[in-house]
Amino acid sequence: MREKLMKARSKKSGLPPGTAVYIGERKAGKTRVRMMSYSPGAVEEREIADPRGLKKEEGKITWINIDGVNDAPVLERIGEAFSLHPLVIEDIANTDQRPKVEDYGSYLYIVVRMFDHAPDGVYSEQMSIVLGRDFVLSFQEAEGDVFDAVRQRIRSGTGSLRKEGPDYLAYALLDAVVDDYFSLLETAGDEIESMEERLVSDPSPKVLRDIHHLKTEMIVLRKSVWPLREVISYLEKTDSKLIRPGTKTYLRDVYDHTIHVIDSVETFRDMVSGMLDIYLSSVSNRLNEVMKFLTVIGTIFLPLTFIAGVYGMNFRYMPELEQPLGYFAVWAVMIIVAAVMMFYFRGRKWI
Amino acid sequence: MREKLMKARSKKSGLPPGTAVYIGERKAGKTRVRMMSYSPGAVEEREIADPRGLKKEEGKITWINIDGVNDAPVLERIGEAFSLHPLVIEDIANTDQRPKVEDYGSYLYIVVRMFDHAPDGVYSEQMSIVLGRDFVLSFQEAEGDVFDAVRQRIRSGTGSLRKEGPDYLAYALLDAVVDDYFSLLETAGDEIESMEERLVSDPSPKVLRDIHHLKTEMIVLRKSVWPLREVISYLEKTDSKLIRPGTKTYLRDVYDHTIHVIDSVETFRDMVSGMLDIYLSSVSNRLNEVMKFLTVIGTIFLPLTFIAGVYGMNFRYMPELEQPLGYFAVWAVMIIVAAVMMFYFRGRKWI
Amino acid sequence: MREKLMKARSKKSGLPPGTAVYIGERKAGKTRVRMMSYSPGAVEEREIADPRGLKKEEGKITWINIDGVNDAPVLERIGEAFSLHPLVIEDIANTDQRPKVEDYGSYLYIVVRMFDHAPDGVYSEQMSIVLGRDFVLSFQEAEGDVFDAVRQRIRSGTGSLRKEGPDYLAYALLDAVVDDYFSLLETAGDEIESMEERLVSDPSPKVLRDIHHLKTEMIVLRKSVWPLREVISYLEKTDSKLIRPGTKTYLRDVYDHTIHVIDSVETFRDMVSGMLDIYLSSVSNRLNEVMKFLTVIGTIFLPLTFIAGVYGMNFRYMPELEQPLGYFAVWAVMIIVAAVMMFYFRGRKWI
Amino acid sequence: MREKLMKARSKKSGLPPGTAVYIGERKAGKTRVRMMSYSPGAVEEREIADPRGLKKEEGKITWINIDGVNDAPVLERIGEAFSLHPLVIEDIANTDQRPKVEDYGSYLYIVVRMFDHAPDGVYSEQMSIVLGRDFVLSFQEAEGDVFDAVRQRIRSGTGSLRKEGPDYLAYALLDAVVDDYFSLLETAGDEIESMEERLVSDPSPKVLRDIHHLKTEMIVLRKSVWPLREVISYLEKTDSKLIRPGTKTYLRDVYDHTIHVIDSVETFRDMVSGMLDIYLSSVSNRLNEVMKFLTVIGTIFLPLTFIAGVYGMNFRYMPELEQPLGYFAVWAVMIIVAAVMMFYFRGRKWI
Amino acid sequence: MREKLMKARSKKSGLPPGTAVYIGERKAGKTRVRMMSYSPGAVEEREIADPRGLKKEEGKITWINIDGVNDAPVLERIGEAFSLHPLVIEDIANTDQRPKVEDYGSYLYIVVRMFDHAPDGVYSEQMSIVLGRDFVLSFQEAEGDVFDAVRQRIRSGTGSLRKEGPDYLAYALLDAVVDDYFSLLETAGDEIESMEERLVSDPSPKVLRDIHHLKTEMIVLRKSVWPLREVISYLEKTDSKLIRPGTKTYLRDVYDHTIHVIDSVETFRDMVSGMLDIYLSSVSNRLNEVMKFLTVIGTIFLPLTFIAGVYGMNFRYMPELEQPLGYFAVWAVMIIVAAVMMFYFRGRKWI
Repeated sequence: MREKLMKARSKKSGLPPGTAVYIGERKAGKTRVRMMSYSPGAVEEREIADPRGLKKEEGKITWINIDGVNDAPVLERIGEAFSLHPLVIEDIANTDQRPKVEDYGSYLYIVVRMFDHAPDGVYSEQMSIVLGRDFVLSFQEAEGDVFDAVRQRIRSGTGSLRKEGPDYLAYALLDAVVDDYFSLLETAGDEIESMEERLVSDPSPKVLRDIHHLKTEMIVLRKSVWPLREVISYLEKTDSKLIRPGTKTYLRDVYDHTIHVIDSVETFRDMVSGMLDIYLSSVSNRLNEVMKFLTVIGTIFLPLTFIAGVYGMNFRYMPELEQPLGYFAVWAVMIIVAAVMMFYFRGRKWI
Repeated sequence: MREKLMKARSKKSGLPPGTAVYIGERKAGKTRVRMMSYSPGAVEEREIADPRGLKKEEGKITWINIDGVNDAPVLERIGEAFSLHPLVIEDIANTDQRPKVEDYGSYLYIVVRMFDHAPDGVYSEQMSIVLGRDFVLSFQEAEGDVFDAVRQRIRSGTGSLRKEGPDYLAYALLDAVVDDYFSLLETAGDEIESMEERLVSDPSPKVLRDIHHLKTEMIVLRKSVWPLREVISYLEKTDSKLIRPGTKTYLRDVYDHTIHVIDSVETFRDMVSGMLDIYLSSVSNRLNEVMKFLTVIGTIFLPLTFIAGVYGMNFRYMPELEQPLGYFAVWAVMIIVAAVMMFYFRGRKWI
Repeated sequence: MREKLMKARSKKSGLPPGTAVYIGERKAGKTRVRMMSYSPGAVEEREIADPRGLKKEEGKITWINIDGVNDAPVLERIGEAFSLHPLVIEDIANTDQRPKVEDYGSYLYIVVRMFDHAPDGVYSEQMSIVLGRDFVLSFQEAEGDVFDAVRQRIRSGTGSLRKEGPDYLAYALLDAVVDDYFSLLETAGDEIESMEERLVSDPSPKVLRDIHHLKTEMIVLRKSVWPLREVISYLEKTDSKLIRPGTKTYLRDVYDHTIHVIDSVETFRDMVSGMLDIYLSSVSNRLNEVMKFLTVIGTIFLPLTFIAGVYGMNFRYMPELEQPLGYFAVWAVMIIVAAVMMFYFRGRKWI
Repeated sequence: MREKLMKARSKKSGLPPGTAVYIGERKAGKTRVRMMSYSPGAVEEREIADPRGLKKEEGKITWINIDGVNDAPVLERIGEAFSLHPLVIEDIANTDQRPKVEDYGSYLYIVVRMFDHAPDGVYSEQMSIVLGRDFVLSFQEAEGDVFDAVRQRIRSGTGSLRKEGPDYLAYALLDAVVDDYFSLLETAGDEIESMEERLVSDPSPKVLRDIHHLKTEMIVLRKSVWPLREVISYLEKTDSKLIRPGTKTYLRDVYDHTIHVIDSVETFRDMVSGMLDIYLSSVSNRLNEVMKFLTVIGTIFLPLTFIAGVYGMNFRYMPELEQPLGYFAVWAVMIIVAAVMMFYFRGRKWI
Repeated sequence: MREKLMKARSKKSGLPPGTAVYIGERKAGKTRVRMMSYSPGAVEEREIADPRGLKKEEGKITWINIDGVNDAPVLERIGEAFSLHPLVIEDIANTDQRPKVEDYGSYLYIVVRMFDHAPDGVYSEQMSIVLGRDFVLSFQEAEGDVFDAVRQRIRSGTGSLRKEGPDYLAYALLDAVVDDYFSLLETAGDEIESMEERLVSDPSPKVLRDIHHLKTEMIVLRKSVWPLREVISYLEKTDSKLIRPGTKTYLRDVYDHTIHVIDSVETFRDMVSGMLDIYLSSVSNRLNEVMKFLTVIGTIFLPLTFIAGVYGMNFRYMPELEQPLGYFAVWAVMIIVAAVMMFYFRGRKWI
């Protein structure tokens, strides 16, 4: 896993609370701010150069998506435009938050994590959602996300997305994030299955490394999914006016999915642990097999070589050497010894 | 286990909620809809070609069993006929739900899982039950189920099934599902017992694989049974009008069975884990035994061969070679060396 | 363990609830019904051939003990005589219940398990107690029990047993059952202690098997004792009229004993697990020792044999062979080589 | 550990409740009863031969310490003198109670355990405290305790002990017991530290046995400390009149210490478990090292011996043997083979 | 880890409660008392020689930092000046407290632990905070701390620190302590990452020792962080007047950080455990490889040496020796035997 285990929070040690310092590693080129504002009948979509110009339109729902949180002034201007608490701005930039939800009265601040399964490991990205009375802000660390289907549904007006409020939009975003976990789990499930086969047919150190990677992946994933459960549960049960009862039914569905993800992560963890045990046992088995082979060879040839050595001695008086059939008798003895050994090993199931 | 660990939920990513997409792997030929409607005195049973024609009869209890949930239009028509919420229809088709129960006021939506013990692993099937005021709908992924005894009791009128309401029918179905778990556990118990014997007599890699399979099976089973417990507990305690007090006594019985299943699964998990440890110890023991054997052989014959080698040297002046009894003296020395070794090994309990 | 892990519940699958089918393996010859009825001043004791003739005497406490629950008609007649619910009769015959207590208003139904430590494992037996206003019924799978001291106290009138109500009798029975667990644990404790010694002196496969048996025994025992705790706790806290306050002080004592049993079982489990680790380490240690020995022998004699081999070659021109002292020089070299090796091994603590 | 894992409770099976039977193994010579009675201004201390003569003095606090609980009549007379419930007397003699507290209205019955770290293991002793309105009784299994500092404080009048009530005395006793646990833990901590060093420098079977002993010790200690926490917590929160609010602040301090002990025991358990894993890995490492050595020796000398063997054959026509430089050529070949092997092993880091 | 596992609490056994005895190992030269008192407009900072001269100034917030708690009289004088309970003074000197918070009405007593990552392990230091109506006392075991940024913010007046009350100062101190944990975790994270690489490339005993150290470190850290969570949670939820609502928002932020630390510690623990398993598997793998090599060499050369030995025998009549091509035939046989072996091993993937 190339991602750092702990982000360099030390960058900001000693600063007073409320300071926005980006601590991640992703060098998103430029922060990009995109706005969609829609009502049941209309959609408007544009890119915003200067967030100071941000204005909510009455009667419309505004969704502002920000890609890149390493530009402190931009974040602060957005914070001012929507009257966000300084601690919220700090947390948005501070991209190793664990998933959480905080109720600031006029808006809810939600943090979730998105995952990207690269060949060399899993990358995680923090997504912050601010849900207000008539707006949703979403902050991502880098461009490229899982919300294209949501955008498409807004543009085309299919489903009820345009008819519902910003809470439904927030739900749709959360749903997209959680749905994306399933694709991650599908990949992991496939890997586990392929590994299980290789475990039996070829327990190489490569498999060992793959098991370790998968285990680490599950540990990391788990760390994000358990608190996510609490986030969704909080949203489903909150008495904040910002979440309407109708949306809660849908949030319960997301909650079910989250539980499903947790279940799968735990199951995979169990299975990967089990695979390590099996691996260790397999290696021991192979060692056993190798040792048996060596023992069989050694046990057969050491005595034979000894016998040959005896009759290679140069004593003046060795009666056997004079016998005309001595040589053949020795062969016979050696063959009998080898046969007895073989028979003994077969009895012990070593060969 | 041939069944996929994670079903291809990605098939439906991006779709608006409420869309019925089948994500399982079972190609049930054609969806088959069978209806039984009964009162204390009468039973009617028929197959339904077009679910649009579905009509509940007053004063009768209607049980509709649907085999195959991969035909979205059929599901949607049934959904309309019984006024089901779109999320229910989606969940029925989405066959990797974990067991759950949801109260939609005029009906309860229950999901449980059934298991099928095939030689190459355990297959699970989702069963959805919708319990209404005078009807029960049951949705299965494939034909062939554990409800024949229930059907028989309805047809013959034995027991009180025909005299009770639809909640009792739902109980009977749940009871049949949980009872079926016991047969699965009996098979698993037998396997464990046979494995325990083989563990002692022949710790082969085959046993290792069997242990792994059984362990995986328990993990999968466990994942279904724990939430089932909550489902039954919810039904037993709900204040929904759909479950009458008399039925709750019977649900408590099912609850007891579920706890029993959980207990057994956990016990089996413990035992299988223990068996893996024993297996590893057994393999180590065998390795030890093999190595002792090699060491005994090597330790006896290496010195002897060395002695023989010494008197095979061609030095011009080697006094021993000239002794008339030299050859026999060497034999004597070799026999003494071997005997001392033997004695030493016996002291160490290596032979 | 010769007892089946899962009893053949499948025997009764498909039958309507309330059917009494014995699923155990014990072939108790004939069901035997014994009755004791007593008041502070008098005791009457007799065997009952036909349970239909059962009659409770006014002003007396009746204790009916039934040995053998495989005779369905007998159970059903007793059920009728004391107005027991069909599910109770079913559970009495269904002898793999986990310990539980159910309050049916006019009587309490209690299930506990008794253990029998045979040389080849532990056998468990289900005991059902029905506690009514003036009677106690106790159902056992086989003859032979731990209640003789209770019977003796009733007969002789020592202690307060005859002066108290049926709840006190039920307490006395439960107390006898739990007390019996201690003798089981004493045996297990002795076994653990003897195994710990053998672990150090002789880590043979026999010990491994004993550890496995003991581990399994603890798993099985644990499965019964945890729910027992809940049973006693329920009895101690219930507001049922059938248990009088005075008896609850005694039940608290039984509760303490149960906790003690649980503690001991958990401690033994931990210790047995630890022993397995120690065993594995011991075996590895021994292997190490064996391998060191082989290595020492191999390392000393392989070079020596090589040297002897060199001077056994038949080249025409080998100057050393012509030296008068060549032979003795070679011996000197060989002794030096061996001594250096020895010294090296001693430095590494291999010998 | 020489102490029995399970005490012989079977001694008292079948006896009616309330019978005082000593089940421990300590043969305390004679039961010894010492009394201290004090008021802020005066102290009186004497030994009591016959507990029937026991009398509480008005306006004074009486502390009676009993060493030895194997003399049933003495216990019973004390029980009568202070009106103790028979079950309390039974529990005092029954010395394998787990720590607990029971409120009998006019007095509290407290059980704790004391530990003694002997070279061959840890011995535990049951201490029972009965706290009444103006007296404290303490029962120990054997003479020799940790209360000398408390006695000294009573005699000298330092601190507030003589000014406070019997609850403060009970607190002081409990505090002394818990403080004593720390000295046990200090010893254990030192052992762990010394073992950690030996683990690296010399992983001998001796270390293995020490790890096992320490692990067992922690299991036993843990079994006593967890319930102790509940005891102290109960005393701190009880609304019994016997514990005054001022004393509860001090009990909170003891509670903190208990938590500290629990923390340390759990930490030590974790560390000891970790050490076992390290031990196993160390042993494997050593085995590896030994095997590499053997392999290097074997791999170098087996081919060389083979070469020497070839030229020791007695074929009539072997051209090499006739070459004048044949012998030296063979030496050259053998040296090259050995050097190549060496080089190869160095590349693999085996030597 | 050079720090003692258990501090020598025995030093103070037997003393009455409330005695201040330093039990740590740090020999801080002289106790140093520094005072900062500030209001929104002014700051005063000075060193105090004699704590008896301590006086709070009206309208100002006083922060007194004490480095070194081994000087009992100094502590007692401070205790008198601020009317602290004797048990508080005892706990300040008693430097192996676990983190806790106690409400004494007019002040809160908070204990946390700070860590210092030295090359030979992690050192922990107890920090006690006493938060009063207009003062904060902080007690440290040794000089050198993490509060320089806080002091700088007080001096320069940046942020809102000087405008807020003593509760905000206490928050700032706690925040600095928790922030410092992150730098510890960053170091640990880097170590884990470097170890993971070495695990694959070079599983030496050095790695094993590092894993053990890291594991111990996590155990120790964990022991401090879990109770810290409760401390912060208590402060966030307390209804003590000493913590104003505005500060609680900031405490929630510290709480989040604490949870983050706990999460990371648990994750690292899991990963380090996993690494140990991987290590063990790696070592087994290497052993396997070594053994295969030995087996291949042994299996090839033992038969060849045997063949050479046969023709080195000195029997008078051995027909092969007379054959002109005998020598070359034997070479051919030996080459064929070796080739067959090679082929066989390649099939088994041993070479």
